[in-house]
Amino acid sequence: METLTAGQFSLVYNAFSFGIATFAAATLFFWFGRSQVSHHYKTAVTITGLVTFIAFYHYWRIFDSWGEAYEVANGVVTVTGASFNHAYRYVDWLLTVPLLLIELILVMRLSQTETVSKSIKLGGAAALMILLGYPGEVSGGIDSTRFIWGALSMIPFLYIVFTLYSSLGEAIERQPDSVRGLIRLARNLVVVSWFFYPVVYFLPFLLSLDGGTTRAGIEVGYTIADITAKAVFGLVIFAIAVRKSEAEGAKA
Amino acid sequence: METLTAGQFSLVYNAFSFGIATFAAATLFFWFGRSQVSHHYKTAVTITGLVTFIAFYHYWRIFDSWGEAYEVANGVVTVTGASFNHAYRYVDWLLTVPLLLIELILVMRLSQTETVSKSIKLGGAAALMILLGYPGEVSGGIDSTRFIWGALSMIPFLYIVFTLYSSLGEAIERQPDSVRGLIRLARNLVVVSWFFYPVVYFLPFLLSLDGGTTRAGIEVGYTIADITAKAVFGLVIFAIAVRKSEAEGAKA
Repeated sequence: METLTAGQFSLVYNAFSFGIATFAAATLFFWFGRSQVSHHYKTAVTITGLVTFIAFYHYWRIFDSWGEAYEVANGVVTVTGASFNHAYRYVDWLLTVPLLLIELILVMRLSQTETVSKSIKLGGAAALMILLGYPGEVSGGIDSTRFIWGALSMIPFLYIVFTLYSSLGEAIERQPDSVRGLIRLARNLVVVSWFFYPVVYFLPFLLSLDGGTTRAGIEVGYTIADITAKAVFGLVIFAIAVRKSEAEGAKA
Repeated sequence: METLTAGQFSLVYNAFSFGIATFAAATLFFWFGRSQVSHHYKTAVTITGLVTFIAFYHYWRIFDSWGEAYEVANGVVTVTGASFNHAYRYVDWLLTVPLLLIELILVMRLSQTETVSKSIKLGGAAALMILLGYPGEVSGGIDSTRFIWGALSMIPFLYIVFTLYSSLGEAIERQPDSVRGLIRLARNLVVVSWFFYPVVYFLPFLLSLDGGTTRAGIEVGYTIADITAKAVFGLVIFAIAVRKSEAEGAKA
């Protein structure tokens, strides 16, 4: 475990607490919002809230695990011997990453066949990406085990990014004018926020990352990336659902 | 108690946490989804959420029991003396296994008489199956007590599998075209995921199962089997309910 200053310990502690509050609030916002969208978009908005709910649960666990791994007394941080469980992030992603791709697909309201086939392909690739990253992360070392699993995990990662701009990209261009820009924004938010994860995963190969500053930077960075990819992304999905519900209601 | 490596301990710990998050999310999804099905299918969907809710409760307990049975300090796992309570699984199954067979029957919307008679027969057989397995599991030994109760438990198990393909199988073939494939899939999911349970029960008679690898494999395997039989199965039940609601709404 890293040696942390009291400031570094607190920064991460407070970032995790911020995550708990943000994800809880976002969840309630989305679930209240279900009543404001037409029945075509209710499942998309339910799942948007589920993603932030699952993240809320894991930030709670991560926050507790962080608090148990260190002891702060008189401004000095000592390691307790209990390990900080990084793996909660992987458990979280295994559920939320496929679901947030499915949110995006559902809010587009494609044909039933296309919805099912794209959900299986993108959701399956996302789950595979997380499962392949896990053995490398928990192996602990900065060695070939970490590198090989990480490299394997990049294959589904790149497939997803490619699909979001190729076949899903074409479907986005067929969306109504009023929401096309927002759907592009949602897609871009996912991709941009995701690039943080492989950078953090592979960075130890380039730089020595044992310091407290790096640990604090990684945890705060993950928190910002998670909030962007789940809560901010969810707000865009919700806005799309509201706008489409209004437009389709007006037409009918 | 087995000797575990830190990796084995963590894998099981994270699998249980994954179970908690999955079952909580699935429960909320099904209960929100109640508003999206016609009143004929609301009970089926309510029960689908009850099954995952009960599993959520038991995974929380199992997670805590696992954490109390072992202590991890500086990467070394030691046994605390508190025993890991396997029996939570039986308590869970006693409630959930009859209920998930009843979900399947309810979503088929058979006649009232058939619904009641099939629910009593299949639900009763399922409860009997769990009750008969319990004394063998808690006896602790790999001896004739475990074997005899296990063998007795296989009688209702085989009766249920037989019924799912014979008399219930015939009723499935009379379901509307649009959902027949999904109902067959739901039935097959139950049967396939269930075969994991007797295999684990009887495996100690063939192999020595004292190792940490085996313990980790069993707990992770149970978690995957439970998620398949309850949450994934529940999603198929929900999809059937939505599709039948739409088809019947359009007809009326």
